[in-house]
Amino acid sequence: MIRVDNLLADIPREMPEEIVGEILRTDAFRIERIVSRGQASPPGFWYDQEADEWVLLVKGSASLRFFDGREITLAPGDHLLIPRHVRHRVERTDPEGETVWLAVHFGGELSLLSAPRP
Amino acid sequence: MIRVDNLLADIPREMPEEIVGEILRTDAFRIERIVSRGQASPPGFWYDQEADEWVLLVKGSASLRFFDGREITLAPGDHLLIPRHVRHRVERTDPEGETVWLAVHFGGELSLLSAPRP
Repeated sequence: MIRVDNLLADIPREMPEEIVGEILRTDAFRIERIVSRGQASPPGFWYDQEADEWVLLVKGSASLRFFDGREITLAPGDHLLIPRHVRHRVERTDPEGETVWLAVHFGGELSLLSAPRP
Repeated sequence: MIRVDNLLADIPREMPEEIVGEILRTDAFRIERIVSRGQASPPGFWYDQEADEWVLLVKGSASLRFFDGREITLAPGDHLLIPRHVRHRVERTDPEGETVWLAVHFGGELSLLSAPRP
């Protein structure tokens, strides 16, 4: 009945792209695991999200850049709230190992972030 | 504007009791950090919560016991959903160091879990 999963498990050795997996979804929020291995946002790309996002860096390291020029380097345990429409990009993730993020998306147009439904 | 905090920081050396701190609250859910250092639920005590809880063990180790007798030992990265009214207790947390949990409470009677408001 109670099922335990692990955020650090089931990570493939080869990851040409980031892996995004849904952990929990309600009408009000969505929890995701994101695994990166050296990936960054494409040059010139900015996230401009329709929902608020709370993000925790669980393992690894990463740098986020904001449109105002500020850059933040994240270590394990670091967490922050990125309000909707605050433009940002992933400037860097650890090229040597996995970076594991926990993201909680909420408020705003969550539906625009969701996978298509039948 | 963007503020970064760390789940593993600001933990006092002496902790006679667990420390529960709110990270984020909306009308729909509440994210908490819980820090334990060897604490467990009192003998005979069972949580019987009015809301669902998703919990992630970030650091340390712990054992949860459920009313049906099942016991689950948790390591860093382990996460699980504890539906409302599934009775459970914290049987053990690491006596040697901090155990840090992330808990997301949602659905149900969130108000019963909230701090009193004016």
